[in-house]
Amino acid sequence: MNMSRTRERLVVIGGDAAGMSAASQARRLKGPDELEIVAFERGHFTSYSACGIPYWVGGDVTDRDQLIARTPEEHRARDIDVRLRTEVTELDVDGRRVRARDVDSGEESWTSYDKLVIATGARPIRPDMPGADAAGVHGVQTLDDGQALLDTLERTRGRRAVVVGAGYIGVEMAEALINRGYEVTVVNRGSEPMSTLDPDMGCLVHEAMEGLGITMVNEAEVTKILTGDKGAVRAVVTQDGEFPADVVVLGIGVRPETTLAEAAGLPLGPHGGLLTDRSMRVRGHENIWSGGDCVEVLDLVSGQDRHIPLGTHANKHGQVIGTNVGGGYATFPGVVGTAVSKVCDLEIARTGLREKDARRVGLRFESVTIESTSRAGYYPNSSPMTVKMLAEHRTGRLLGVQIVGREGAGKRVDIAAVALTAGMTAEQMTTLDLGYAPPFSPVWDPVLVAARKAAAKVRGSL
Amino acid sequence: MNMSRTRERLVVIGGDAAGMSAASQARRLKGPDELEIVAFERGHFTSYSACGIPYWVGGDVTDRDQLIARTPEEHRARDIDVRLRTEVTELDVDGRRVRARDVDSGEESWTSYDKLVIATGARPIRPDMPGADAAGVHGVQTLDDGQALLDTLERTRGRRAVVVGAGYIGVEMAEALINRGYEVTVVNRGSEPMSTLDPDMGCLVHEAMEGLGITMVNEAEVTKILTGDKGAVRAVVTQDGEFPADVVVLGIGVRPETTLAEAAGLPLGPHGGLLTDRSMRVRGHENIWSGGDCVEVLDLVSGQDRHIPLGTHANKHGQVIGTNVGGGYATFPGVVGTAVSKVCDLEIARTGLREKDARRVGLRFESVTIESTSRAGYYPNSSPMTVKMLAEHRTGRLLGVQIVGREGAGKRVDIAAVALTAGMTAEQMTTLDLGYAPPFSPVWDPVLVAARKAAAKVRGSL
Repeated sequence: MNMSRTRERLVVIGGDAAGMSAASQARRLKGPDELEIVAFERGHFTSYSACGIPYWVGGDVTDRDQLIARTPEEHRARDIDVRLRTEVTELDVDGRRVRARDVDSGEESWTSYDKLVIATGARPIRPDMPGADAAGVHGVQTLDDGQALLDTLERTRGRRAVVVGAGYIGVEMAEALINRGYEVTVVNRGSEPMSTLDPDMGCLVHEAMEGLGITMVNEAEVTKILTGDKGAVRAVVTQDGEFPADVVVLGIGVRPETTLAEAAGLPLGPHGGLLTDRSMRVRGHENIWSGGDCVEVLDLVSGQDRHIPLGTHANKHGQVIGTNVGGGYATFPGVVGTAVSKVCDLEIARTGLREKDARRVGLRFESVTIESTSRAGYYPNSSPMTVKMLAEHRTGRLLGVQIVGREGAGKRVDIAAVALTAGMTAEQMTTLDLGYAPPFSPVWDPVLVAARKAAAKVRGSL
Repeated sequence: MNMSRTRERLVVIGGDAAGMSAASQARRLKGPDELEIVAFERGHFTSYSACGIPYWVGGDVTDRDQLIARTPEEHRARDIDVRLRTEVTELDVDGRRVRARDVDSGEESWTSYDKLVIATGARPIRPDMPGADAAGVHGVQTLDDGQALLDTLERTRGRRAVVVGAGYIGVEMAEALINRGYEVTVVNRGSEPMSTLDPDMGCLVHEAMEGLGITMVNEAEVTKILTGDKGAVRAVVTQDGEFPADVVVLGIGVRPETTLAEAAGLPLGPHGGLLTDRSMRVRGHENIWSGGDCVEVLDLVSGQDRHIPLGTHANKHGQVIGTNVGGGYATFPGVVGTAVSKVCDLEIARTGLREKDARRVGLRFESVTIESTSRAGYYPNSSPMTVKMLAEHRTGRLLGVQIVGREGAGKRVDIAAVALTAGMTAEQMTTLDLGYAPPFSPVWDPVLVAARKAAAKVRGSL
């Protein structure tokens, strides 16, 4: 009898990367005798790769199930009680319980917890404008969204697509639709695509996208979406004109999904995400953890909280949470803001601060931009690459790197990501012992060329 | 009159990467009014990429001149007095002068210097055995070597090649000869190819090479080379048998070329290379610098001196030397032992210590090996990759990483190279913010998967 009392219950809200990684790791550390795990997921799937949706839509991934890392059945086989189509509608922190509603039957019931993981993810920003809900207008946040978009692509005989937003989801969806044979127009509010880069680097993306046959419309605010026969989308309207569209994809970003947490009085940050400590415990709450797209993370370069919805962070959060819930000890120290994406053969990467980020936190900096190649210049298929580097004025501390190039460009950002984490200066980077052979790099890796130029500029400023 | 007295003379011995980088950088900082620069080179070329020779022989690089980064004429146009086919035969340290011999005329003369750069490179190890000088037996150290090998490949109608040595030059030459349509046998003294890796990782290279149709013969000592008609090579003989060969390539390594320096009493290290301080100044000699393949470098992981002949180090040394000679200040702190190479589509990379290196310096370690993929598993052309990681017992400090895989594997070693330089632990590496998107990486980069496993093993050992 007393045995059952010693068994704790972990409740997980949200069945994707952060939540299910946490559940799996906790299970690895504590068996079902010690820990009961209940996971609520309002959708049909668990542990899927939302980042893979553009490649599924584009046809590179042929089967939706390939995007599912672990099915509900697989989780259940490991004694994780996954409850699909079950939405948590209320969190009672004092009573240590959640109220969940069966989406299909509408029935509600309370489940108590000893430990709670909030992994509610993010919700896409839907523009509040006429026509935003028209048939043929799609987000690409969930597998259901992806399926709905694919159904539209099947159904319509149209060939014109408009992508709203030119962040990484926007450019990846532009590629997907090009691969599907669409004429693609990307409508973007900013001065250049990829606002996670400085505009001078975004401009390179702009040029390359146009070279790929994508029409790029910058500084354009969508004011409405026009519909035609049977309420289907017909065109996207901006202040400057109208863009005919048989299908519209919205890629204008996401916000942390913290409705539940906010109602329960949990602490939220400036970007609307939950605030946690380094062990991913919600600040001030001993028995509640949170991770993934619903939390804010510490930016190790700027010292500020940020919201960076990315699967790789969500998985790390889940791993850390699961370890802590399972009685171990792990921390997630923060991020440096690394991201990499591609549009057709163009690779785009960034880490650390942009110029405007550095200014915002009052850092003075030197900025350099260099051109180099992915391999030794004489080696076949060597491709050009532009690297921009920011280093702090006087100290020379690395602040950020942005890379635009072709094959071999994107993952080079990892060099800078590790150097940023370690707090290296540009000068220290100039002698980094990076892998060199003609098929892999020029004798000076492009990142080192940038570091040399940045270090010289820093020295010159002393 | 006094003006000419204030002009110093820099003499550079050796016209390849280290020497000419030093000369060029010194020239950038000091004009011809302040600094005269004389460079002696015994061959026909300056500033060429010896690392590119395998790709020229293999046909990936079609023109020898593509391997020349800067010609003698280009150096001369920048007021560097390059004297080709001129060998320095004596160094008089006390008298601050060198004796140089015109290789063609045999004439000798002394040239005085105020500052000296020794960049005499390395010489290939030639086995002392019958037949080692037969026609059709080639080294691949210089452009002249490469041309001679190409001439043999043109001339002989043979189709059988034996490569002696299975280090990076050996495997690259195996690829080159495969690309030329040869049946290739690699004869190797060690238990597995790529002795810069641990044998368990070398074994993966072995299997992959055999998969490419290369015959790999390990633990084989070449005892003689047989010649046939007109003295041309006919076969390579080992203790275990005879391997027919129309052409033989020697890739059994190099030694620092320090004959001059040794005769002049300059300090040499345990591997026969010159010893310098961090500014690349020869120890105990205010006005003599040395860099490139003729020096030993500090291994930042083991704290020991090593000899690592690699173009990327030579260029960095030259840059540091030129800055110091030119009145600036720069240092080369050392290396972590990063190397990357490929044989056909197999990529091989390593950094830091192997198991035996760690044992030699008395470090206890945990070793883990993981399998992962270059991209998200569901993304097209995702290829398998094996990552081995060594971390120090108890402290968890990263000691080394080895990677064997296909496209996208090799340059991932840079992540570990930077982490080693920064002295990170495996635990710290688990939360590195590396670039993630499905076309670039699984959600956990393979290096992070290895770090997680290593960190867990370290924690388990406490």
